[in-house]
Order: sequence, then structure tokens, then C-alpha cells
Amino acid sequence: MATIDINCDMGESFGNWRMGNDADVMPYVTSVNVAGGYHAGDPHVMRETVALAAEHDVGIGVHPGFPDKMGFGRRGMDVSPDEVRDYVVYQLGALTAFARRHGTTVQHVKPHGAMYSMLSESPEHARAVMDALLEVDDDLIYVATDTNIYDVAKEVDGLRAVFEGYVDLDYRADRSLIVEQELSDRDPELVADRFVSIATEGVVEAATGEEISIPAETICIHGDNPNAVEILEAIHDRIEEHDVRLASLSDVV
Amino acid sequence: MATIDINCDMGESFGNWRMGNDADVMPYVTSVNVAGGYHAGDPHVMRETVALAAEHDVGIGVHPGFPDKMGFGRRGMDVSPDEVRDYVVYQLGALTAFARRHGTTVQHVKPHGAMYSMLSESPEHARAVMDALLEVDDDLIYVATDTNIYDVAKEVDGLRAVFEGYVDLDYRADRSLIVEQELSDRDPELVADRFVSIATEGVVEAATGEEISIPAETICIHGDNPNAVEILEAIHDRIEEHDVRLASLSDVV
Amino acid sequence: MATIDINCDMGESFGNWRMGNDADVMPYVTSVNVAGGYHAGDPHVMRETVALAAEHDVGIGVHPGFPDKMGFGRRGMDVSPDEVRDYVVYQLGALTAFARRHGTTVQHVKPHGAMYSMLSESPEHARAVMDALLEVDDDLIYVATDTNIYDVAKEVDGLRAVFEGYVDLDYRADRSLIVEQELSDRDPELVADRFVSIATEGVVEAATGEEISIPAETICIHGDNPNAVEILEAIHDRIEEHDVRLASLSDVV
Amino acid sequence: MATIDINCDMGESFGNWRMGNDADVMPYVTSVNVAGGYHAGDPHVMRETVALAAEHDVGIGVHPGFPDKMGFGRRGMDVSPDEVRDYVVYQLGALTAFARRHGTTVQHVKPHGAMYSMLSESPEHARAVMDALLEVDDDLIYVATDTNIYDVAKEVDGLRAVFEGYVDLDYRADRSLIVEQELSDRDPELVADRFVSIATEGVVEAATGEEISIPAETICIHGDNPNAVEILEAIHDRIEEHDVRLASLSDVV
Repeated sequence: MATIDINCDMGESFGNWRMGNDADVMPYVTSVNVAGGYHAGDPHVMRETVALAAEHDVGIGVHPGFPDKMGFGRRGMDVSPDEVRDYVVYQLGALTAFARRHGTTVQHVKPHGAMYSMLSESPEHARAVMDALLEVDDDLIYVATDTNIYDVAKEVDGLRAVFEGYVDLDYRADRSLIVEQELSDRDPELVADRFVSIATEGVVEAATGEEISIPAETICIHGDNPNAVEILEAIHDRIEEHDVRLASLSDVV
Repeated sequence: MATIDINCDMGESFGNWRMGNDADVMPYVTSVNVAGGYHAGDPHVMRETVALAAEHDVGIGVHPGFPDKMGFGRRGMDVSPDEVRDYVVYQLGALTAFARRHGTTVQHVKPHGAMYSMLSESPEHARAVMDALLEVDDDLIYVATDTNIYDVAKEVDGLRAVFEGYVDLDYRADRSLIVEQELSDRDPELVADRFVSIATEGVVEAATGEEISIPAETICIHGDNPNAVEILEAIHDRIEEHDVRLASLSDVV
Repeated sequence: MATIDINCDMGESFGNWRMGNDADVMPYVTSVNVAGGYHAGDPHVMRETVALAAEHDVGIGVHPGFPDKMGFGRRGMDVSPDEVRDYVVYQLGALTAFARRHGTTVQHVKPHGAMYSMLSESPEHARAVMDALLEVDDDLIYVATDTNIYDVAKEVDGLRAVFEGYVDLDYRADRSLIVEQELSDRDPELVADRFVSIATEGVVEAATGEEISIPAETICIHGDNPNAVEILEAIHDRIEEHDVRLASLSDVV
Repeated sequence: MATIDINCDMGESFGNWRMGNDADVMPYVTSVNVAGGYHAGDPHVMRETVALAAEHDVGIGVHPGFPDKMGFGRRGMDVSPDEVRDYVVYQLGALTAFARRHGTTVQHVKPHGAMYSMLSESPEHARAVMDALLEVDDDLIYVATDTNIYDVAKEVDGLRAVFEGYVDLDYRADRSLIVEQELSDRDPELVADRFVSIATEGVVEAATGEEISIPAETICIHGDNPNAVEILEAIHDRIEEHDVRLASLSDVV
């Protein structure tokens, strides 16, 4: 029986500004990536998101970003390896305290936006972050979204890393993702097909028709997709038919 | 033999802006209160301050403040009990992650400036913070600067609290402190006298001549006093003569 | 023929976070209060809002707030008269530059949230702000939301001030407003009745039935009311029947 | 008689954090570049700096930076031409309001740090900023620090631009500057020689001995140089001997 995790970004509201549909999506996922207050989120949003995740027994991860709320952490910032490491440690720690209040802990780390891109492009920055994660808590799981960063993570002694797949975006033949400017409705049946294909066989069909390998232990679903809940329901229906079990990352790894 | 702690605020630099003389003062103190990035400090400053404290085997505490760097956390903000609690949890957690990287942990909590005043004036706010601290880590020690907040802390089941004394400021007969707008040179010998008096007998002379009770387990020294190092040297000299031992809070409590 | 202005808060989005329905509401109002980047808004949002207002030939005002995005400027902050004055000047200037790019200028000033409350409660703070406004631009119009602040404004030599009325909230007999935690649908016909009553006779019926005097030259409509557009359409229909003319503040004063 | 301006960055304090020696340096310069509250400065610092400059009859310019106080605006940020333009307009406007309170105006614009570098490297970004400056106030003078940006500025119809020279840093033969990580004492006599050489002949000797052309109408002095005042005194002494007149940019152009 295949076991796989569904992760989703959450806690991206800020102050009076709302974003996403956390309460609607939470029942369908097994892990969440919670914004750490730098690119999105704040202490109140973090507490609420952690409480909601704890209530649904969902694995909690930190989704650290650059200190750039105005740009939502999506703009490159020319920070040093030490700087990005310290930003991750800070946000990780902050989230951990909220998790502890709810008798749980932080399970994984998945950098956001431009910080993710920087770590993927610069092994030196990625190593700085990963080494620090091990020092803070060697149970943490690093969620790698591409091959570059997965390879760096595998070289860090003692670091647990997982590869992440996408089913509500299309892949190119080289396993890179075709990212859209604006999220649009996705065909729930197509997405569910892909989900099962990755979960059971570790493959998916690229936009150009080739079958490519996606050895993912977790699948990311975009909770801000207009029909995210519909997609998640389709996935849940489909996996029942295919004997796929969902579990949070700490159970999968 | 009397045992007492010396605590000092540190890590109050921010970005390129320097404040305080942390490196000069660190060798003389046994506990430090590290700004959590809200009223002062940032992830890099926190890391450096924690590293310096760990190197000197000094107890690390969080010095959380309001999210108001422009006002250095010294301006009242009308936040709810839930809000102030979440701000403390956030900053505590962030600092804890840096402490863990250095094989240590956060020993105590001492709110800063206007946040401290709010907690002292509103038991409801104080309780919200203290209950949360217990939930995050029941080893944490709450540093109470006045009788109000010390009384609230003693009512929280399981919370360790200590009372803090001052020797580089003058007391009024009612045990309130005469706070000065600008720090000025203090007579090191007078300060050292007071230190020993509080450490060995739990009393100090008020500005108006009365002897008042200061049952302190830690003494706060203002590191930004112009002659802070001279004061600390005088204290260290004097305690040797009076059989007073210095130890960080976790050893005193 | 009665002439009156309709003002509405706008430009309250921030970065990727959207708030309000500015584009839908803009065609129906004659003046807008644009957030200045402290409690809400940012340079991009300000530019877009100013461009939209200029396109509709709507009077542009600044809606300055406290530097507290996390609390949306709704939490009291214990700032000095000098501080609040400088915050207003800063935000006013910033908005003015965007207005100049569109060949227009800033017509009025209406402080937001907790800053508004502080100015209403402290004549010293209010005077500091008003004196500075005169020094920056003596054509600026100060929008006074209550009697306290209107009285202070009238005492400032050379300052133009207008009184503002509300029709989508209820008044108490003492002319104070019954503010609701959450905005709800309002009966458009009732709101339109009140609008005409204030515009033509300067009176409105309080929640307890008394007729009270509201000598308003502008009426504030909450653009984030769920049925704001419906309300505005009802007002526009009604004023045609009653010979009331709409004009932006600079034409009314 | 040669006429030239001396400009200096100022207003780089923030909240309780002090930076620079504005009061000591102000009497010796003719123009200042005032931080706009994004990378440094805040409304109170801006007001004080403008007041000090007005008192000394010194030309006031805005020194806009990226929204990155933690990095002091020295870290590249991948912002769009529209974004950087809006950041400049915002900070320019804010400073202008303070200038108006003191009966003066903003004379020039000199982008700071990483924003300066971005504009120098990307003509598209530079054009976006320059076009906006013209729309806000066509009297503004753009201070160009290198040939790239000077060339772009000269192509913008109606924009006044000046070239800036340095005397407390060394030039390479290609007219690029050898920037040091940390500012150190400079030989006041050497600096004064260079100043006169640029002011009177438009040339200076590069670090490798070549004489290079520096057609500067303003010379930047680093006010945070440890011996900045001594340098400025040497310059003032020397220009008296050489019949060079100092005047703020608006008088030079």
C-alpha cells in the first residue's frame, strides 16, 4: 500500500488582511507549511493556524520567507548565506513555540518563494540553512521541491529530506514546473489521476507527453486555487479506490 | 553564602545600527535579556548575542517587546491579552531556536519597556502571557520587576518567578523606582554597596533614607550606563569581600 | 440647491493582500481617503488608488494612521504630539507626490482609526497636527468626525475644516456613533433617506428617535460594507429627486 | 571662479538608534541627501534633519532606498521598474512635506545603495524613476554617480542631472570607485588637493597614477568617515586659496 503526504501553504493572512481558505482546506491535507511572519503571517495568524492544524492532527511545517511583506517574499533579495540561515532559524523557532503550546512540534521546513529559489540556485546558501536546521532539531524534515536542492540535502549528514511533487501544475520534460502567473481552475479528475500516478508509480506525464519520474513522498496542493477543495475531494475519492494511504510527512519518512 | 544573579539587557542593535556594549559587559553578568526582534534586535543580532552569551556561559533570557522599532518598544500600545501573549510566544520561540543551535536554551523571560508596564498594570494581560509561557516550557523563569507582577506570577501554578532589584537607580520608599530620562554616571562604590546589601540582607536604602525590603534573586544592571563596566568591576570586587556568589538565574532559583 | 460630498476610505490593500472594492465604489463618490502606507496601503496601492481617483475626477485626501500594520492602525499608541504630527506630515507628503504625478493634489486630511481617536481626545495632539498641515499646505481641508475635533479645528487660524456625517451607522442622541464590530448589510432606502435629510436639512434621526443636528458638508460611506454599491446607487437615485448636488470637498467648502 | 557643491548623506538615524554626525558636518556642506524612511530615517529624524539643513541654508535632497532597514538598503532586491519608481516617489513626497514646513523644498534626488546600483545597471529602471521625477517636480536635479546613469539621465527630456565626484575614495583608471568595506581616516591634505583639482580642472589622479576626467558639479563627502570634519575643514581652507566657491546644487546647475 502506497503512503504519501499532501502539503499545503497556510497561515498567509496578515493582520486584518485575509488570504487563502485555511479552514476549508485543512480537513483534506496531512501537512501544512505555515508562514513565519516575514513574508506573510503574524503571531496571531500563526497561533490560529497551528491550533487548526493541531485540531486536525496535521503535520506542522514552517514556510520561512524573506523579510519582505510588501513583495510577499517573491522578490529576490541579495542576502548572504548567514543572513538567510538566521531568517530561517528565527521563523522556525517562532513557529515551534506556538506548536509547543499545542503539545506538538514543527515537523518540516519548506522555504517560500524567492528564498526557495535562492536556496535552489546556491548550494552555499542551502548548506548554511540545512546545517543550522540540524543544529536546532535533527528531527526536522527538509522538503525539496527540485532536484538541485534535493541533491544538496542528501549530502548533509543526518538531515532528513523528502522530494515534493505537484499535480495542480504541469511539468516540463526536464522535471521543471510550468508556473502560472495566476492560478486557475484545474480539472479535478486530471489532478487526481496524476496524484495516484505519482503516489503509486512515482511517475507523471509532462505537458509534452513524456512520462517523467517524480519520486515524491509529498504532494503540494495550492490551497488558493479557486477550486482547491474540489480538487482535494477528487483526490480523496480516487485514493480510496487505489489503496493509497495519506499520512503526514513524519509518518511517511 | 548568598547567591545572586546579575542580569543585563543585550542584543539591542538592529541592522547596521549599533547600541550598547555587549561584548564589554558580557564577562561581568550571569544572565542576559536578549531583544526578540520586535522593539530591537534582528536574527543576526540575536545569533551573535546568543553566541557571545553561550561562550561566557551566561543564562539567556528573552526580552520581548511590542512591535514598534520606531519607538523602541517604549510606547504603550493598546493590544489585547491574546495579542501580547502571542508576541511573547513568537519572540521566545525565535530566541529558543538560536539558543538550541548553541546547545543551550532560554532560561527566563523579562518583558521590555511598555510591554512590561502593561503587564504590571493589567493582571489579565500578565496572566495570558504567564499561562502561555508555562505551556511552551515550564522551566522558564519569569523575572518580575515590581510587586504587582510578582504577585500575579506567584498565583500561576507551576510558574517559577523571581524578583528583580536595581542598584544603579534609586528607589522611593514605596519600592518604586526613580527612572531617569537619561542614564548618567553612577558612583561605583555606592552601587556596589547596594548590591551587597540586597544580596546579603535583602534590603536597600531609599532615596529618602528609609531602609526598604528588596527580596531580589537577580539584580539588573543597565549596560548602556556610561560607566557600566566600572560599576560591574566594583560589584565584582565588593562581592569577593562579602562572600557573595554570582550565578545565573537557573542556578539561583 | 444643496451641495454635499461623499467620502470613502480607499487604498487599504497592502502588497498581495486585497481589501475593499475601490474600483466598484469609486464611480459613486466625490472624495476618497487614501491610506498612507502606515496602517495600510503601500506605494503601489497608493499610485493605483490615486490614478483611479484622478480618472474619476474624485477629490484625493490622505488617511494617515499609526505605524501599525499588524493592528491596522486601530490600536491606541502612546505617541507624543510631535510624533503623531510627523507621521501625518510623512504620509501626507508621500501621497502628494503621487497626486502630482497625475496633475492633481491632496485636497483633505482625515486621520484613521486610533490616530483619529487620539486627536479627538487630546487637543494638544490635534493642534500639533493641524498647525503642521497649515505649514505644509494651507489649502488642505481637515475632515472632523466629531464635535471635539471640529471645535479644535475651528480655533486654528486659517485652517479649513468640515464636519462629516454618517448614514450607514446609527447615531445616539448625543451625536456619537454606534460603531459595530462587523459591518452588515444596511437598508439602502433608509440610508438614502438619511443622506437627503442631512444634505438638505442638516438633521438625522437618532437610534432612539430624537432628531439631532448633523451640520455635515461630507458624508462618509463605508466602502467595505457588503452592500456598499447598492447603498450608493440608492443615494444617487434619491438625490436626483431631491435636488441635491454632489461635489468633492474642495467645491463644497 | 569655479563653483561646486559638497553633498553628504544625512538623516540615517532610526528611532533610538543614532548614526552619523549630522550636526557636526552640516556647517561644511552645501547639499544633503536625506534618507526617506525606507532603508534609514523615520519621520522624526527627517524633520530634524530638514530643520538643521534649513537652518544652515543647505540644499535638501532625498536619498531614497529599498524597503529594507535590516539590510540598510544595501542588498539587491529584485523589484520591477514600477516598484522602484513608486518607492522613490513615496520617499520624495514624504521629504517634500517636511521641507515645505520649513519654507523650502526638495532640490535633488540621489538613490542609495542597492537602489543606486540597480538604476545604474538597468536603464529601464532608471528611466522609470527619472520620468516619474519629472512628473512630480521638473525642477528636481538628479545626482548621477557614474557614467551609465548620467547618460540615461541626459536622454530624459527636461531632466536636470549633475555628475558627482568623490575625493575621499580612490578612482580606478576607468573612473570606477574603489569602495572600501570599512571607512578609514583619510589624509585631509590629499583629499583637499583632489577637491580643488576636480573643482577647477575637472580631473583627478586615479589610484594607478593616470589623470582621469571627473566633470563633477558636486563632490560627495562621507560624513561617517572618522575624520570627516577634519577633511571638510581642509577642503574649506584650500578652496579659499584657490578661488573656488561653494554653492548648493540648485545654484550650481
